[in-house]
Amino acid sequence: MVEALENNILVPQGLIAHGRGECFDYLIGEKTQDFAENAINAAAATLLLAKYPVISVNGNMAALVAKDIVELSNEVNCKIEINLFYRDEKRVKAIKKALENAGAKEVLGDDDLTTIPELFSERRKVSKNGIYIADVVLLGLEDGDRTEALVRLNKKVIAIDLNPLSRTSMTASITIVDNITRALPLLVKKVKELRSKDRIELVEIVKNFDNKRNLAEAIKFISRRLEALSEDLIGH
Amino acid sequence: MVEALENNILVPQGLIAHGRGECFDYLIGEKTQDFAENAINAAAATLLLAKYPVISVNGNMAALVAKDIVELSNEVNCKIEINLFYRDEKRVKAIKKALENAGAKEVLGDDDLTTIPELFSERRKVSKNGIYIADVVLLGLEDGDRTEALVRLNKKVIAIDLNPLSRTSMTASITIVDNITRALPLLVKKVKELRSKDRIELVEIVKNFDNKRNLAEAIKFISRRLEALSEDLIGH
Repeated sequence: MVEALENNILVPQGLIAHGRGECFDYLIGEKTQDFAENAINAAAATLLLAKYPVISVNGNMAALVAKDIVELSNEVNCKIEINLFYRDEKRVKAIKKALENAGAKEVLGDDDLTTIPELFSERRKVSKNGIYIADVVLLGLEDGDRTEALVRLNKKVIAIDLNPLSRTSMTASITIVDNITRALPLLVKKVKELRSKDRIELVEIVKNFDNKRNLAEAIKFISRRLEALSEDLIGH
Repeated sequence: MVEALENNILVPQGLIAHGRGECFDYLIGEKTQDFAENAINAAAATLLLAKYPVISVNGNMAALVAKDIVELSNEVNCKIEINLFYRDEKRVKAIKKALENAGAKEVLGDDDLTTIPELFSERRKVSKNGIYIADVVLLGLEDGDRTEALVRLNKKVIAIDLNPLSRTSMTASITIVDNITRALPLLVKKVKELRSKDRIELVEIVKNFDNKRNLAEAIKFISRRLEALSEDLIGH
């Protein structure tokens, strides 16, 4: 991460966000838990059912999972688009290069841009060939305003966010509460596994997934874990 | 914080640590809770009873609470010493300047140094007129190895750490689980309040404080809060 800062891929604010994530990863036991597996399953089915899925990439994602992004985009034939809160052209270039080094053939986000309403940061600039026309957007480590704006545009949002209480987590259609470095490879695997299923089965998987209930499970998991730790401490 | 990075006071790793702290602050409700008040009370009594207290300052503390550090050092007549994990002389200078700008008259850490055993980072370099001879060391946002090393040298350690599960929190003599920007002003206030008490009362306050039990309270508080949030989410 510190290296990514030096390479212009990350801004300092990205490191603070990374630290917040580390804390929640610690609280979920630094493992992919059942609630994450459930969300990954629903996410894979959603991506396979999508007409025009797009992976929205920011600096943290490029620093952590560039290869997995490319692999997922090949598996579900979806676009990769760079979208940054702290946008500057030097950063867009550095991130694009990191994705291309990881094997990406096409990276959107510095092409024909338009703006989406109700976003007041540079993230409202989206590609006309990407997020603007997407029906499903996968994003990681994103802030709540952005997620809300995309949902309001009737896009299905798949979010990977370690904080089950964040506005992104609460707003997304499907929230994977897991470390993106573990979740993305598992998502690729799950897509491969579900590819052979017919549409009805995939639709059923998506229907049976309740994001609020799943988030409640994630929060309860952390709560129970802390309860046990506090009892250990005073020797109960 | 980002400014402090540019001013050489912080290293990028300090921003990640700050993010981890933000997460726990969020979990305790971004407020000074009872368990923190209890620890602040015991910390104030300990500082007033101390023969040679020292405040150990790192980059994050200098960036966030330089003025409060100086005020506390005036109130309890204790030394201020810079001690860094990622030490370099430029950083020591920048932090010293920040403390002097906040009113510090004497700042140790670039003077007559010696080393303490069993620490393998630059933090083992301590001032012969400061941490080396201190009976009480107050530190914030510190890593576990360092806290353990100081406790092993029979120093009383007062730690300010938002993570009640950290090794620093578990090892310290008194752990204040609170945001340092709220805790330090409250500690100054409490020192002023307890100054008029006689030693017997102060000793009693310290005796009645059980750090493990207090940490268990902090962890239980977070656990209960999460439990309630998860129930809200599914409408129980």
